Amino acid sequence: MADWQEITGGVTAPKGYRAAGITAGLKPSGLPDLALIVSNVEAIAAGVFTTSQVKAACVDYCRQRLQAKTSARAILCNAGQANAATGSQGVRDAEESAELLAKELNISTELILLASTGVIGQRIKMDALRSGIPKLVASLSETGSDAAAGAIVTTDLVTKSIALETTIGDRPVRIGGIAKGSGMIHPNMATMLAFVTCDAAVSPHLWQQMLSRAADKSFNSITVDGDTSTNDSLIALANGQSRTPAITEMGAEAEKLEAMLTAVCQHLAKAIARDGEGATCLIEVQVTGTHDDLAARQIAKTIAGSSLVKSAIFGRDPNWGRIAAAAGRAGVPFEQENLQIKLGDFLLLENGQPLQFDRAAASAYLKQAATDYPSTIKTQRLDNPVIIAVSVGNGHGTGKAWGCDLSYDYVKINAEYTT
Amino acid sequence: MADWQEITGGVTAPKGYRAAGITAGLKPSGLPDLALIVSNVEAIAAGVFTTSQVKAACVDYCRQRLQAKTSARAILCNAGQANAATGSQGVRDAEESAELLAKELNISTELILLASTGVIGQRIKMDALRSGIPKLVASLSETGSDAAAGAIVTTDLVTKSIALETTIGDRPVRIGGIAKGSGMIHPNMATMLAFVTCDAAVSPHLWQQMLSRAADKSFNSITVDGDTSTNDSLIALANGQSRTPAITEMGAEAEKLEAMLTAVCQHLAKAIARDGEGATCLIEVQVTGTHDDLAARQIAKTIAGSSLVKSAIFGRDPNWGRIAAAAGRAGVPFEQENLQIKLGDFLLLENGQPLQFDRAAASAYLKQAATDYPSTIKTQRLDNPVIIAVSVGNGHGTGKAWGCDLSYDYVKINAEYTT
Repeated sequence: MADWQEITGGVTAPKGYRAAGITAGLKPSGLPDLALIVSNVEAIAAGVFTTSQVKAACVDYCRQRLQAKTSARAILCNAGQANAATGSQGVRDAEESAELLAKELNISTELILLASTGVIGQRIKMDALRSGIPKLVASLSETGSDAAAGAIVTTDLVTKSIALETTIGDRPVRIGGIAKGSGMIHPNMATMLAFVTCDAAVSPHLWQQMLSRAADKSFNSITVDGDTSTNDSLIALANGQSRTPAITEMGAEAEKLEAMLTAVCQHLAKAIARDGEGATCLIEVQVTGTHDDLAARQIAKTIAGSSLVKSAIFGRDPNWGRIAAAAGRAGVPFEQENLQIKLGDFLLLENGQPLQFDRAAASAYLKQAATDYPSTIKTQRLDNPVIIAVSVGNGHGTGKAWGCDLSYDYVKINAEYTT
Repeated sequence: MADWQEITGGVTAPKGYRAAGITAGLKPSGLPDLALIVSNVEAIAAGVFTTSQVKAACVDYCRQRLQAKTSARAILCNAGQANAATGSQGVRDAEESAELLAKELNISTELILLASTGVIGQRIKMDALRSGIPKLVASLSETGSDAAAGAIVTTDLVTKSIALETTIGDRPVRIGGIAKGSGMIHPNMATMLAFVTCDAAVSPHLWQQMLSRAADKSFNSITVDGDTSTNDSLIALANGQSRTPAITEMGAEAEKLEAMLTAVCQHLAKAIARDGEGATCLIEVQVTGTHDDLAARQIAKTIAGSSLVKSAIFGRDPNWGRIAAAAGRAGVPFEQENLQIKLGDFLLLENGQPLQFDRAAASAYLKQAATDYPSTIKTQRLDNPVIIAVSVGNGHGTGKAWGCDLSYDYVKINAEYTT
């Protein structure tokens, strides 16, 4: 059905990109902690950043850069220190990072974008960064996506990566993406980060519009614990190296590209939700029947974010009452006589009233979606979510949201990593 | 400092009220489950109800009653069945409950208000209710508040009750209240309920205004798990039996009465937060420096509701990063350079940047606030909350919110009560 196919290669699948990930000594663990994505030519750049009032230095840096110039060559990301709540010295550290990389790449500083993840209140370990950058640039490779994906994680259990290919004007066009995030953890490890590369030629304004819409339908529609980070960043490059005709306004080709961009973002977003702290399953909430899509997404997010719904799913309890209560408090008006709730294939509530259903079978449905990660990580299933389908009326609005269940391990992870 | 003193007697402390609580056989547990509060004369009545789109029959019933008539004689509350998502039969059950009670009290049906708490989707056990009502009315007593408070609980660990007294025009005036609530539990047990009695003479419009403002500063400022119930109800009666001059507009006496009403509501709200599922401590968040009070309360509620902050407090971890992140995502603009965070007496963040502090001592401060309930329940301490004080600027807005920590037992309670 989809107008594209999955390919390998992550952010280096699109033409004209290289990536790298190394251990620079920023993380105390000695795991990879410095990542770089480079486009061989200047690429159109768009970004979506945290709406928090408490922002990391890199977020302010990227916002200013992208306001001044809608193109870029490189994205540098460090893991270990969030460089948030670090004051003016944090700002200078961010600027120095960009300058060091620009010199090493022999390009203008204004073509560098930055991201950080790690402990809030900690500055980047600049000595380690300074000695790491030459090594990082030397490691750049056209197959470097996995190394980059592995160097942006903090306490994620799996790396997140995807690449899709379609055709535009009979030529192949690719979008690749990597992401990290599983809550705000260990003890202040924060951040949802996602980097997307594309080799289509798109105008800057259109690319930003597409990215903002795709973010709403993906990263802005997932919830692990409701806590927006200080460092959340989604950055997307489009470098035109597919040699396809430039897309400058909406139309069939733009829609095709945007749909594929949305699919890439949704894959990464679901991977983040499934990797939520302590999660044993992915939950997809589908809402229909609202006046518009925004309202549907709002209800979907409220249900996906409800601690009570999440606890019930962890308990394998087909508890429609909590789903109904969450839908009711989402801030979207509807008639409760129109409320319908399905869990997988089980119709639990119709016309606002409970139905008889096979409780054991519904509980078994919840069990099959739960898969503990194997002890050797790096794999996750996204194809068997718990599906909660809610209809609230006859409107044409639809929306989806993704989340995960709430387990003992969530509390354990967040309570026991005492500083 | 306060302009009143605490007295005994709960909702029967004010003059001209009787109350009762009995076991009518609605709860499977055989515990008390039917409560009644009666004013000897027609009382001004005001109410604040759930904003959820999915509402219990009693909520619609009370809203309609109070729109048609701003006075009442009695509040009937059943525990065990929420009578929410029960359709037209649920509406008829609510109406029949009111008619039965009116007949037994020999008053007009339109003077009866209703509340329900218990399992969503279950109708009230009408046979048990029918045979219970005569017994309930026969049990009415001027010292019946504790019996009523004990009959409205579901899985609460303690009953919640308070009474305060002040003077208006040199005569004593009293406000009493009882409440229940500790989340939405076991497995669909829902609801925050609070009933307040007062013997002052107040005009209906003013009484409703006072109650709405008091609710915003109390029940609307607590959060256990962010899940608004289908049955939340706060009902307040004022019967004039103190024989004080009628209060019909704002002024010194109205302000005095409203302050005491707010204190009663805040006591009950804190008692509910402290009794949150699995909680080991009460958390009070104090926010200052916003443009207005609403913005301050919004930040305070966001911090009190953050799963990450709540987990950290349970872990006795003075984790200012999570507090800063929660403040930042509350939707209230501020300059992060102005952010200041105190935990008890410990200043953790100033001018948006972390300070050195005695981490062991701050953790010890968190420990002292944590008190497990004794195995024999019915007592709770509200005088040693964890205090998180946040300042975001130089504005004059202030606001408070209350919550509790997030423990393993929260997940256990909500996951393991599988239906």
